[in-house]
Amino acid sequence: MKSIKVGLLGIGTVGSGTYAVLKRNQDLISGRAGRRIDIVMVAARNVARARTIINDSAIEVVADAMAVVNHPDIDVVVEVIGGCTLARELVLQAIAKGKHVVTANKALLAMHGAEIFAAAEKQGVMVAFEGAVAVSIPIIKALREGLAGNRIEWIAGIINGTTNFILSEMRDRGCSFDDALHEAQRLGYAEADPSFDIEGIDAAHKLAIMAAIAFGCHIQFDKIHVEGIRQLQGVDIAYAESMGYRIKLLGIAKRTSAGIEAHVHPTLIPAKRLLANVDGSMNGIMVKSDAAGVTMYYGAGAGSEQTASAVIADLVDIARVASADPTHRVPYLGFRSNAISATALLPITDISASYYLRLRVADQLGVLADVTAILAELGISIEAMMQKEPAADEQQTDIIIVTHHTKEQHIQTAVAAIEGLPTVTGKLVMLRMENLLD
Amino acid sequence: MKSIKVGLLGIGTVGSGTYAVLKRNQDLISGRAGRRIDIVMVAARNVARARTIINDSAIEVVADAMAVVNHPDIDVVVEVIGGCTLARELVLQAIAKGKHVVTANKALLAMHGAEIFAAAEKQGVMVAFEGAVAVSIPIIKALREGLAGNRIEWIAGIINGTTNFILSEMRDRGCSFDDALHEAQRLGYAEADPSFDIEGIDAAHKLAIMAAIAFGCHIQFDKIHVEGIRQLQGVDIAYAESMGYRIKLLGIAKRTSAGIEAHVHPTLIPAKRLLANVDGSMNGIMVKSDAAGVTMYYGAGAGSEQTASAVIADLVDIARVASADPTHRVPYLGFRSNAISATALLPITDISASYYLRLRVADQLGVLADVTAILAELGISIEAMMQKEPAADEQQTDIIIVTHHTKEQHIQTAVAAIEGLPTVTGKLVMLRMENLLD
Repeated sequence: MKSIKVGLLGIGTVGSGTYAVLKRNQDLISGRAGRRIDIVMVAARNVARARTIINDSAIEVVADAMAVVNHPDIDVVVEVIGGCTLARELVLQAIAKGKHVVTANKALLAMHGAEIFAAAEKQGVMVAFEGAVAVSIPIIKALREGLAGNRIEWIAGIINGTTNFILSEMRDRGCSFDDALHEAQRLGYAEADPSFDIEGIDAAHKLAIMAAIAFGCHIQFDKIHVEGIRQLQGVDIAYAESMGYRIKLLGIAKRTSAGIEAHVHPTLIPAKRLLANVDGSMNGIMVKSDAAGVTMYYGAGAGSEQTASAVIADLVDIARVASADPTHRVPYLGFRSNAISATALLPITDISASYYLRLRVADQLGVLADVTAILAELGISIEAMMQKEPAADEQQTDIIIVTHHTKEQHIQTAVAAIEGLPTVTGKLVMLRMENLLD
Repeated sequence: MKSIKVGLLGIGTVGSGTYAVLKRNQDLISGRAGRRIDIVMVAARNVARARTIINDSAIEVVADAMAVVNHPDIDVVVEVIGGCTLARELVLQAIAKGKHVVTANKALLAMHGAEIFAAAEKQGVMVAFEGAVAVSIPIIKALREGLAGNRIEWIAGIINGTTNFILSEMRDRGCSFDDALHEAQRLGYAEADPSFDIEGIDAAHKLAIMAAIAFGCHIQFDKIHVEGIRQLQGVDIAYAESMGYRIKLLGIAKRTSAGIEAHVHPTLIPAKRLLANVDGSMNGIMVKSDAAGVTMYYGAGAGSEQTASAVIADLVDIARVASADPTHRVPYLGFRSNAISATALLPITDISASYYLRLRVADQLGVLADVTAILAELGISIEAMMQKEPAADEQQTDIIIVTHHTKEQHIQTAVAAIEGLPTVTGKLVMLRMENLLD
C-alpha cells in the first residue's frame, strides 16, 4: 500500500523524538497503520545541526519550511516548531495545498484554532493535535471519540507538569515557591523564563481546547480566567493538608445551569482523590460525564518521545481514516461545525465554588463576629473555620474559613469588605475548592 | 445526512442503558456523529416487558433476534444479549449480511474473536467492542489508536469491579472473603453465582483481548494462567499492608525477552502507586510503553449507562469512519491481520516475578536455615524476610519471605520442597508481586 509521506517542520525536542520513535518502531507502526509512515523532508533553521540528528540520507533536510509545505510529494505536514506567527502561516499554507496537518502546538490552536479548522474543513483535510494536551495521554481522543455518547459535565485537569512538580516539591519538602522553581529549572522541568507555565497560560491554552471539545463551543482562550502559582504560599499548602486537602493547579471546565465555565487556578481538592495523588511532573485529567460517570487519565505531560507518541498516533489516524468521507470524519473539535454553539464562557464572577479564605487578624475579641457578619450578610455560609493560637511573641493570628458553595461575586465582595476591617491585616488569601464528586 | 439505523439485540441492563442514553443525548450525539443514530428495531425474549422500556412506537420490538439481524433496513447490529452460542450465531449472520457490529461481549470475543474478525474482514465491516473491557474507560481506543506509535511493554489492570470491591472491603473492614462477597452481593456488585468474577475468568477474557491488541498476537484466552481471590486470606492482606503493599486482582500482560506473558491473579503492588488506590468497584489500567512511558486509565468497569457510553462511542465511530477504505480502517485488534504474529503466550512456569511466600513453621531452631538453603540452591535470592513472634499460646509462627525477581518454575520447585520440610505446617501461600515501574 502507498506509504504516507511526512514533512517535518522543526527538529527540536519534539521533532527529534518523532523521528527517533518512527524509525525505531517502523515495523510495529506500519503493521498497525497498514502502510509505512515515512518522514521524507525535514525543515530546520540549522541544516547542519539537523543532519547530525537525521541519520538517513533518503530524508531531505532544508532550511525553508515553506518549501516542505509546498512540496508536491508531501501528504502530511507535522508542525513542531512552536510559536504562533510562522507556525500559523505554515499550517494554513499546508491546508491550502490540500495536505493533512499534525501539530502539537497548543498556543497556535488556542489563538488561531477557529481560522485553522475553518480552512481545513473547506479543504477537506485533517488537522490532528493529540500532542497539544497532556502529550502521552490520548485525552483528545477520549473526549472527542471515547466519550462521544455522553453529556460531559466537567473536566478537572492537572495539565501543566512544571507547576505540578513545583507544588509537589513545596508540599513534600516544605520549601518555598522560589526554591521549588529553582529545583524545577535545575532538573529541566522549568524553562529559564518559566512565566508561561507558572502563570497558568500554558494550562489555559490546553483548557481552552478541551472545553471546546467537551461542550461544543468555540475555543475561547481570551475568556478563561487564569491565576498561576507564583503567589502561592507554603503556609496555605500546610493548612490545606491539615484539613485533608491538596493544592493543585487545575484547569477546570464545567457546564452548569448558569452556562459554561473555564478557569485555571490553584485549587484545594480532597487528598484522597486519585487526582490529588498525581505528583511530580505528571499530568492527570478527570472527566465527569452523564453516562460514563467519572473517568481519569494519567501520564506524562511533556517530553520528547512522550509528545512523539501523540504525534505518531495522529499520523496513524490519518493513515487509517483519511480515506473516509470528509464530511463524516471525526470533527476537529468533536462536534460538526454546524453543531458548535456560540455560547460564551461565563465571567469568573458568575461561577460558583467553595472557597478557602485565610485572613490575618488581631488577636482580640469581636474580630470573628465582624467577619462572620459580613459573610452572613452576603448569604455565604461557612462549612468550617479554624483559628490558630497566636505564637507566643505574636499579637496576630490566622483564621481559615471554608465556605459552602457560593457565587464568586459574593466572595469577592466579602473579601473586599473583610480587608476593610481595622482588625484585619493585609490582603486575604482566597483559593477555590473542588470536591471532584458532583 | 442519512441516519444510522441500529438493531438492538437484548434489552437487559446494557440494552436499556444504551436506549436511554441514545435517546437522552440524541442532539449531542448527532452533533458529534454528523447524523442521527436511531434504534429502529429491538429484539427481546419478552416483547411485552421490552415494550415497557421502549417508550417509542417508531421502534419495532420483536422476539426473534435473527429477524433484526436479517432486516434490510438495519445498518448496525448491537449485540448485548451476552453468552457465546446465540450471540456468536447472530454476530456472524450480521457480518454475513454486511452489517457493522457493536458488542460488549468479552466472553464471545475471547472465545470466538478470531472467527468473528476474519469473517468481518472478508465482508469489510466494522466490529467494535469498546464495551468489552472496562466499560466506561476508552481503553481499547487508547491501546489501538492513542498508543499506536509505541512498543507496548506491559499492561497491568484492575479489570473486574466485583473482585476489586471485595478486596477493598477485606482491607478496609478487615473482614473475610465470605463476608465481603456477601456484602458485594447485597449491593449488587456480585451475582448470585459469582464464580466468573471471583475466579478471575471475567478478567482473563478482558486480558486476552487487551494482550492481543498490545502485542499484535492472537487472542489466547485458553493460554492465560488464571487464579481468583477465593483462597485469599485476610492475614496476607494485612501482612502486605505492613510491608507497604496492597493486594489487587490484576490482569498482567507483558512482553519480555522470553516472550509474551498474560496472567490473572492476586498481586502485591506498592501502596503508593495510583493503581493501588483504585478502590471499590472501580477499574484502573496501567500501560507502560516505550515512547509514552506509563499512562493510566480509570473509571467504572460495569453498569448500565457506563457500558452504554462505550456502545454509543462505537456507534459514533461507525457513523464517522465506516466510509473509510476497509483495508485502512482501524484494525479489529490494532494490527492489520497480516501483521499479527503467531507467538504463543508463555506458560506460567516460564514467567518471572518477585514472590511473596508465607509459611507456617514450628517455632524452633534451624527452620529458617532449612528454608533458606532450599531457596539458595534454586538460585532464588531473598529481598526481605519477616518472622512473627508466635502468640503466647502457640508453638507455631508465620514467616514471610519476599524474593527478588526469579523464574516461576524455581519458585514452584521451592514451594514443593519447603512444604516437604517436617517443620513446615500445611500449604505455603505464594503470591506474585509487581512493582509497576519497569
